[in-house]
Amino acid sequence: MDSRISTSRLRVRGYHLDGYGHVNNARYLEFLEEGRWGYFDDHPALARRLMGGDLAFVAVNLNIDYREAAVAGDDLEIRTRLSALGGRSARMSQEIHRVRDDALVSAATLTFVMLDVVANQAMPIEAEIRGLLEPLVMEQALV
Amino acid sequence: MDSRISTSRLRVRGYHLDGYGHVNNARYLEFLEEGRWGYFDDHPALARRLMGGDLAFVAVNLNIDYREAAVAGDDLEIRTRLSALGGRSARMSQEIHRVRDDALVSAATLTFVMLDVVANQAMPIEAEIRGLLEPLVMEQALV
Amino acid sequence: MDSRISTSRLRVRGYHLDGYGHVNNARYLEFLEEGRWGYFDDHPALARRLMGGDLAFVAVNLNIDYREAAVAGDDLEIRTRLSALGGRSARMSQEIHRVRDDALVSAATLTFVMLDVVANQAMPIEAEIRGLLEPLVMEQALV
Amino acid sequence: MDSRISTSRLRVRGYHLDGYGHVNNARYLEFLEEGRWGYFDDHPALARRLMGGDLAFVAVNLNIDYREAAVAGDDLEIRTRLSALGGRSARMSQEIHRVRDDALVSAATLTFVMLDVVANQAMPIEAEIRGLLEPLVMEQALV
Repeated sequence: MDSRISTSRLRVRGYHLDGYGHVNNARYLEFLEEGRWGYFDDHPALARRLMGGDLAFVAVNLNIDYREAAVAGDDLEIRTRLSALGGRSARMSQEIHRVRDDALVSAATLTFVMLDVVANQAMPIEAEIRGLLEPLVMEQALV
Repeated sequence: MDSRISTSRLRVRGYHLDGYGHVNNARYLEFLEEGRWGYFDDHPALARRLMGGDLAFVAVNLNIDYREAAVAGDDLEIRTRLSALGGRSARMSQEIHRVRDDALVSAATLTFVMLDVVANQAMPIEAEIRGLLEPLVMEQALV
Repeated sequence: MDSRISTSRLRVRGYHLDGYGHVNNARYLEFLEEGRWGYFDDHPALARRLMGGDLAFVAVNLNIDYREAAVAGDDLEIRTRLSALGGRSARMSQEIHRVRDDALVSAATLTFVMLDVVANQAMPIEAEIRGLLEPLVMEQALV
Repeated sequence: MDSRISTSRLRVRGYHLDGYGHVNNARYLEFLEEGRWGYFDDHPALARRLMGGDLAFVAVNLNIDYREAAVAGDDLEIRTRLSALGGRSARMSQEIHRVRDDALVSAATLTFVMLDVVANQAMPIEAEIRGLLEPLVMEQALV
């Protein structure tokens, strides 16, 4: 797979479910966060820069489609990539697939900014950080 | 307040936070779900019909803006209303405000369908259910 | 009720459940933490001292009995008190009751220490802190 | 390692933490549950019997020591074994170790019963189920 896409896997367990026996809507956001941490594990120079203390990675919007219900025992693969890079914000696109049949369980887009922690405002994405992010952008849809 | 808007309150606690000391992104989805259950508590005839066993309320999309970081001790108010009613889907709009200064912490729109559990497909929103939902629709923005 | 016992209430919701339709074992620990925060809300002088920055309230053991399964819609009351005060550790006893019939759902004892944050070790519970805690101790069982 | 011990691994992420930057007390119970599911994955005949529909695995007590605080980036290993088998209840002992230095982060003992779902009471652990469990018992401490 393209090195600009990171993948994480997990198995659905009882504690992920709600009373209907399906993975709860909120739990998917933890799965997505897990996928983003996996992405940063795969890009350590980027992770070091973004978590340097003076900067913070801050989510400003999340849009998530729920397509299929995942149930206990399903193995899921979370696929994460950087999908857009703007002047002051950027986007990560994430998909959660059921491993058995590659069915798309959920698709999400997270819009984030780089917060200048001292000024407490979104900073322009430029210079060193832009240089780290630009080669990772992969615009076309995954599905 | 307009009876078509339901409100729930909660206080932010240590277990809601992440390592930055802010309410975690995933946790807001539990707050929103709490708000929707409060809405159904306020509309028992609707709740009985939607949870009758043959039907299920199923989220298909959630779009959430994260505006302000909530921290431990903040009292939050979740405001929930039905904001759109289509032929086969409908929308709930929800806002989370900090009680102290009414600051908008988060705003979300949830698109849902009524699943016919036996046929396992979204059913048209008509007849009795439409009659229950229609008087509750409140289209204009809350903010 | 005795002012040395603090109570918090919550209603069981879908997101608290696991695939069996019962409140998940892990979720009870969040209910217990909610109860402890409620206790500190009721004892602000104590809360200010314990969270002053130089000290931290650190759990070292939790023993929890699961007695009855709670299900969606149950209203629960969490009752929290200080039940023992030793030289370097203390205990809080907590019970979760179903409001409808006062059935005991869960009973837990949390052993905690006061961590001296700079020295990174449990400090003796003496002087001012002992003075704040001692009048709150209520040894006999609640049930 | 002894085949009677199952191990699961996970990396601590931001969403596991609380406001102190440590893994939250409640989250450890999810880690322990993850370990138990891993144990059942390793013993499929046992899992099939225990989750056959007429029986349920029900926790009645959990005793957990919190020894070391785990932080973001720590790799943890959960070690799970059956540690005692009585007439109507049994025990699983679980330890969570930090992989880097094998430090013991947490140790827990879970007491469970086999619930006869129809009768809604704990059934004697005998015959086929006893035969499945007995060879797995490993009494001595892990640490």
